[in-house]
Amino acid sequence: MTKKYVYFFGAGRAEGSAEMRALLGGKGAGLAEMTNAGLPVPPGFTITTEACSAYFRSGEVLPEGLWDQVMEALRRLEEVTGRTFGGGEHPLLVSVRSGAKVSMPGMMDTILNLGLNDETVEALARESGDERFAYDAYRRFLQMFSSVVLGISDERFEEALNELKRRRGVELDTELGASDWRQLTETFKAIVRREMGEEFPQDPYHQLRLAIEAVFRSWNTKRAIDYRNAAGIPHDLGTAVNVVTMVFGNMGWDSGTGVLFTRDPRTGEKVLYGEYLLNAQGEDVVAGIRNTKPIAELSRELPEVYNQLVEVAGKLERHYRDMQDVEFTIERGRLWLLQTRAGKRTARAAIKIAVDMAQEGLIQREEAVMRVSPSDVDSLLHPQFDAAVKQQLAAEGRLLVRGVNASPGAAVGMVAFDADTAETWGKEGKEVIMVRPFTKPDDVHGMLASRGILTSEGGATSHAAVVARQFGVPCIVGARQLEIDLEARQMRVGERVVREGEWISIDGSTGEVFVGRVPTVHPRLEEQAELMKLLSWADEVRRLQVWANADVPEDAARARRFGAQGIGLCRTEHMFFGEERLPIVQRMILAESEEEREQALQELLPLQRQDFEGLFRVMDGLPVIIRLIDPPLHEFLPDRNQVWEQLIESRLAAVSQYVLGRRADGRIGELERLLASIEGMHESNPMMGLRGVRLSIIMPGIVKMQVRAIMEAACRVARDGIVVKPEVMIPLTGHVNELKVIQPELEKVAEEVMAETGVRVNYKFGTMIEVPRAAVTADDIASVAQFFSFGTNDLTQMTFGYSRDDAEARFLLQYVERGILPANPFQTIDREGVGELMKMAVSKGRRTRPDLEIGVCGEHGGDPLSIEFCHEIGLDYVSCSPFRVPVARLAAAQAALKLKERVAEREEVGSRK
Amino acid sequence: MTKKYVYFFGAGRAEGSAEMRALLGGKGAGLAEMTNAGLPVPPGFTITTEACSAYFRSGEVLPEGLWDQVMEALRRLEEVTGRTFGGGEHPLLVSVRSGAKVSMPGMMDTILNLGLNDETVEALARESGDERFAYDAYRRFLQMFSSVVLGISDERFEEALNELKRRRGVELDTELGASDWRQLTETFKAIVRREMGEEFPQDPYHQLRLAIEAVFRSWNTKRAIDYRNAAGIPHDLGTAVNVVTMVFGNMGWDSGTGVLFTRDPRTGEKVLYGEYLLNAQGEDVVAGIRNTKPIAELSRELPEVYNQLVEVAGKLERHYRDMQDVEFTIERGRLWLLQTRAGKRTARAAIKIAVDMAQEGLIQREEAVMRVSPSDVDSLLHPQFDAAVKQQLAAEGRLLVRGVNASPGAAVGMVAFDADTAETWGKEGKEVIMVRPFTKPDDVHGMLASRGILTSEGGATSHAAVVARQFGVPCIVGARQLEIDLEARQMRVGERVVREGEWISIDGSTGEVFVGRVPTVHPRLEEQAELMKLLSWADEVRRLQVWANADVPEDAARARRFGAQGIGLCRTEHMFFGEERLPIVQRMILAESEEEREQALQELLPLQRQDFEGLFRVMDGLPVIIRLIDPPLHEFLPDRNQVWEQLIESRLAAVSQYVLGRRADGRIGELERLLASIEGMHESNPMMGLRGVRLSIIMPGIVKMQVRAIMEAACRVARDGIVVKPEVMIPLTGHVNELKVIQPELEKVAEEVMAETGVRVNYKFGTMIEVPRAAVTADDIASVAQFFSFGTNDLTQMTFGYSRDDAEARFLLQYVERGILPANPFQTIDREGVGELMKMAVSKGRRTRPDLEIGVCGEHGGDPLSIEFCHEIGLDYVSCSPFRVPVARLAAAQAALKLKERVAEREEVGSRK
Repeated sequence: MTKKYVYFFGAGRAEGSAEMRALLGGKGAGLAEMTNAGLPVPPGFTITTEACSAYFRSGEVLPEGLWDQVMEALRRLEEVTGRTFGGGEHPLLVSVRSGAKVSMPGMMDTILNLGLNDETVEALARESGDERFAYDAYRRFLQMFSSVVLGISDERFEEALNELKRRRGVELDTELGASDWRQLTETFKAIVRREMGEEFPQDPYHQLRLAIEAVFRSWNTKRAIDYRNAAGIPHDLGTAVNVVTMVFGNMGWDSGTGVLFTRDPRTGEKVLYGEYLLNAQGEDVVAGIRNTKPIAELSRELPEVYNQLVEVAGKLERHYRDMQDVEFTIERGRLWLLQTRAGKRTARAAIKIAVDMAQEGLIQREEAVMRVSPSDVDSLLHPQFDAAVKQQLAAEGRLLVRGVNASPGAAVGMVAFDADTAETWGKEGKEVIMVRPFTKPDDVHGMLASRGILTSEGGATSHAAVVARQFGVPCIVGARQLEIDLEARQMRVGERVVREGEWISIDGSTGEVFVGRVPTVHPRLEEQAELMKLLSWADEVRRLQVWANADVPEDAARARRFGAQGIGLCRTEHMFFGEERLPIVQRMILAESEEEREQALQELLPLQRQDFEGLFRVMDGLPVIIRLIDPPLHEFLPDRNQVWEQLIESRLAAVSQYVLGRRADGRIGELERLLASIEGMHESNPMMGLRGVRLSIIMPGIVKMQVRAIMEAACRVARDGIVVKPEVMIPLTGHVNELKVIQPELEKVAEEVMAETGVRVNYKFGTMIEVPRAAVTADDIASVAQFFSFGTNDLTQMTFGYSRDDAEARFLLQYVERGILPANPFQTIDREGVGELMKMAVSKGRRTRPDLEIGVCGEHGGDPLSIEFCHEIGLDYVSCSPFRVPVARLAAAQAALKLKERVAEREEVGSRK
Repeated sequence: MTKKYVYFFGAGRAEGSAEMRALLGGKGAGLAEMTNAGLPVPPGFTITTEACSAYFRSGEVLPEGLWDQVMEALRRLEEVTGRTFGGGEHPLLVSVRSGAKVSMPGMMDTILNLGLNDETVEALARESGDERFAYDAYRRFLQMFSSVVLGISDERFEEALNELKRRRGVELDTELGASDWRQLTETFKAIVRREMGEEFPQDPYHQLRLAIEAVFRSWNTKRAIDYRNAAGIPHDLGTAVNVVTMVFGNMGWDSGTGVLFTRDPRTGEKVLYGEYLLNAQGEDVVAGIRNTKPIAELSRELPEVYNQLVEVAGKLERHYRDMQDVEFTIERGRLWLLQTRAGKRTARAAIKIAVDMAQEGLIQREEAVMRVSPSDVDSLLHPQFDAAVKQQLAAEGRLLVRGVNASPGAAVGMVAFDADTAETWGKEGKEVIMVRPFTKPDDVHGMLASRGILTSEGGATSHAAVVARQFGVPCIVGARQLEIDLEARQMRVGERVVREGEWISIDGSTGEVFVGRVPTVHPRLEEQAELMKLLSWADEVRRLQVWANADVPEDAARARRFGAQGIGLCRTEHMFFGEERLPIVQRMILAESEEEREQALQELLPLQRQDFEGLFRVMDGLPVIIRLIDPPLHEFLPDRNQVWEQLIESRLAAVSQYVLGRRADGRIGELERLLASIEGMHESNPMMGLRGVRLSIIMPGIVKMQVRAIMEAACRVARDGIVVKPEVMIPLTGHVNELKVIQPELEKVAEEVMAETGVRVNYKFGTMIEVPRAAVTADDIASVAQFFSFGTNDLTQMTFGYSRDDAEARFLLQYVERGILPANPFQTIDREGVGELMKMAVSKGRRTRPDLEIGVCGEHGGDPLSIEFCHEIGLDYVSCSPFRVPVARLAAAQAALKLKERVAEREEVGSRK
């Protein structure tokens, strides 16, 4: 018995189904499914991908039995259509199309109107009563078949058509008549005769056989192979071949063709959306020769068909349980569906549709949660440009440059080339885009005063990018074609120059920079009922908590509004960069005696306490993790080279004074001392130097002050009836003994404060796990630490041995482009390396302390793929920037659902064994 | 039945033995052991540590049954000595001493001559016929008992003795006579009466009981507790108490006391060595009041005793199977042994004794291998000062300063304050000690021209230290009291100034710096027959191979002489720093076109080839691992600040030229370009930036040149009949894809060269494992790499997140001092962290490739504790600096023996279960 290679569909029944995608290809499975669902699909049959594979295996010979099965299917087709293939008064015409398991749009071949020849075209003319239509169809078939199957250059036919139009003195195809088309078919057949040395095949069976083989072979064309290589599709899948009865939308004004979305793909509203043309073929809609009409008009033009469409749309949605994008044709008042698939939609629509469908009972709430991608949520929370407007602007040549889309959202403002200008303008109420080659910590005040940030250097995790994401400021980095001239206060791309103060618009979601002002919309979470609903469903599903990284009460408040369940990281040192504080911090660092240092710390104490009070009040009832000082102290001092230059300037000035017989001022000595201090603190690799817990051990004064500030704030706030849950986090621990040394000292301070104030609060001490050794020895470390928080940024740096800034500028992006790394490990957790260490830390840590609270506070906390991993390895929470909290809530829910599904699958497999 | 608390020894039989160290303490077990061995030991008994523990448990009450057992033992003692305790004509006197399981020298108490009172002292005088002796013994007992047991301040008694001497007008105790001592005993008893309000206890049983309790209590004095805390000794061990019959070396000229080594502890020669005094007590020998005589003289003074000593020495060595340090007393011609223990010895002696004893059949060869410490071998291979001479110099105030003993050996030379001076003088044949605040890579030529290196900054793994150890140059670093004035060409410590060109001597083994020339001896391995022998035995035992790190043929030759079995690391970039090469390398780096770069590489090719040819010739038949370029390119460029200063100087000069109406030279432009290049290459953490395999992927030209040079050299040398085994090592791999990208490109070069030359050699490609991620994903990496070499320096840096230079300068040494880290992880592998990753890499790597060759080429390869770990985890070899090869051979053997023993112990425990 030969294998079954052909699957028939038609007259309400199909041998295939949606599950047979691998065997029948996507299109074939879809046609079968629609047929079985009782939808009006032109009958036809699908030749399997196995046949294709067998064809290649046997050296391009059709497998045994295939042709017999095709003949048998053709017979059935003739039967259900009442037509005959290759002759008779009602000739059967078919389309022959490829259709692989995975969609490869435009990669493979299609032949329409197969079955026509010099005889049947006459029958078609008679049957349709439209000779022009018949010969138009025939000339199209001749051209398509000749180029696709016979391999004759398409140009030959185009030339002949153009020649004919020239001779007729017309511009459009529509201006040609029946006799013109008839004449053209003769010309086309002559071309074939000339090129092939033989006649165009008139036998439809022969045509069909050649067409099927041509579709098979199109699987192995160079462009198809290249496409599969690029898209990572296996080469051995093969393509199916769909042979489907032709239907015609150009058989008069009761015919037509169109595209239909079952809901509005822009807004998600539950109304039919789409366009159509009467008396036209699909190609005409695409070509845009005639203006299409909105689908609503069909209710007036062909009300019955419209009603049928409404019914079909409902059926399709109930069947596929998603919004569908449908291609249809109306042949003489009869509706045919040629294809249906899930419709593409905007983020807003995706959310509304998912929520509506769940509320309509069409899908489960969990399915709704799975239907929306986290990036949809993300894009909804940032200001946006209208895509159409952007397209328009690009067409007008107003797209200045593209860079790396570092922080999503749209922003419009006047260009400012330094942080101070940006801040000044910002205070004046102006909208500013700060543009720099790159940014540094002392640019932050300018960045915060800006609507957007644009840099010519740096990668997706450069300083500018990280800070921008943290504060939800749209940002584009690494726009390398941009030449910034800070002296001349202008930037240029090629010939185009933008001066300081001129308007630009940046789209942080796409990396595009436009000249001028592009209008934006700024959505708010609270106003988006469907999103709020969806997130509440996500919250029901997820196990992983979502906390936020926030340093100031405003951030914390926003985080809470967005659904954060705690603060996972408050970076105390960010508070040190404040304008009034930095001088005190510098005095503390440069102190020449313990008293001097202690005095500076005493000045900082009330300022820090105030910071923490605000946080605790906002986070009433929720945990707040405060990380003790982490960076090396030299980060708070001015740049060495800058001081050096000032010193030289001062000395040169002193020379002038000397020449003029005057005394020099005292600034030189001061600068010399400052320079000496800075140089004394120099480290060759500061990332791995004196910072974090190491700094606390060598110089415990700072962290004792910080713990005092935390606990004083906590006790004050607690006295007001607010529930405070401070958790003190020690960064950069590598050996448990570091904690054994410093933690008791700090706990003592905490107890002192509580004794002084007479208020008791529950506090915890824990540590970051961000050094590989901490992960490897997590069992030891958990004997002291009461919680872990993965600092996945540093852990990634040290596990790979990458200094992030250096790596992204020098080689990391090239690594990702060349596929050496599957993704930038600073964006998505590297499962095999960093992830393996995290798993080790979780299992070892919990072995020592089963109730150990474990989270992530690196930037990965806001990345959906990383969140999925965090869920899988059993973390308690992820902490991310406030703006990412809704994204993380959804991602955490999806992670839980995916894992549940995988477990269920495994169990099913297990029970089947 | 009560517990046995008392163990008797005497008359050739003891109840205890050497194995009962925990119960009887070290001393008690030793006395029992000697007694059983038939050696002349004064009889006595030991009260167990359990009695001590019971004493404390019950609140300082003697445990039940103890006193009865003491009485019983005293009866036996009276029996075997023929003396009576507390009366009679032959009074029995005893010493009462503590003796814990672990030696705690000077920490606990001793009472001599117990049993004396107003009555027995008279009997003693009669029996000895020496009243002075008897009262001298009594007054000593009174003082010792009163201070130790009764707690009366020792000063009272010293004052009384001094008062008596003042009154008698004498200076020395020896000038006092019998009546003086008798009078003093009355004074002493009066002191006790005054201080205690009661009489000195005259009942010897009472004395004994008080003394035993006092010894028990001495276990818990503050100083004993402090000592145990510091030494990590458990507090619950308790001390034993030894009650031993007194023997007297001061009973006339046929009595005496002395110390005996059974072999010469300085040289290891098999002759008795020691000193003695006749008619004297142990204290007299220690006090140095009379000059002791060498033991050989005893053969003339008391030939019988001497012969007995010779016999005893042999018996002791046969019994203890080691050279012994023996305390003895001769009482009226009769020899008594009071203590024996393994004698301390010099490195040279340790080796000779071990080898001799093995050859004498006294110990097994394996035991000989275990007897010598690796540091003994190390110290034997470096020039040395004589310890006595150093002591003399210190006494003369010529010890200038102490620093960190970074590289062992002694060196003498004239101070040079920079590398160029050192090199110039060195070429002139002068002996130079290079002194710098710290050293940098471009100081290496000066370091190599020097006999020794001294720096005021840096730690044990600073650049100076590492390079010095690599090249076996004695080195002291971090001599912080040293103020170096490079301008004035002098250095000072306090008031003492040493100018450039003056002589100093440095001892790299101890960290001492002396002013002037101290004579040295410089041993050679080949001349040290015993060491050669010992190492050959070590070679028979060890499994772990020892390879060497060598960049040049001279180093390789030395390594081979020292027994290296391969080159584990040749650092190709060290070759780039050569005087003639650096300019070419810089041209290559700064090249503005590919052609320019290629041309520079072509110039480097023959130079590198020549380097490798030399190495291959020397290592005929042995593997040579060559590491491709590792450091970031900016290391080969001048320092940024230096160029900046030159630029300012040039600009200032140009100003002068301008003022004088002349044109400035063109140097400014050149410097500006250089500065821009250097700044363009700046990285914030170069250790984790563009280096190693990353550099090779971004800029493959350099490594292709290197592989060509390696293979051309290999093929040339192979043509001369030499067996070449090149192994190309790719550094800093973190992801297997890095190898997948670069290795095939390099293998292609290798195949090209072999095709060109028509010679085939076997080569391997492998990688360093020095990034934590490489260890975690070693299974993947081994799918491409044919060998692994742990770069434990970088692996330690990244696992801990320590930048070595920064860490040691800022906090690491403090971490070690404060016990936060048990050891400097750059010296000894951190087993829990770094070691855990290494174990993971070994097991994962071998899972993929069972025959994977794995070694270590970090500095740990020369550290005995690290070598032990490398053996345990199954590495194939360690690679260390040539001078450490003998050390590593011994350490590898010891590692094998220790593991064998542990396995045997485990099996024994297992079989007993």
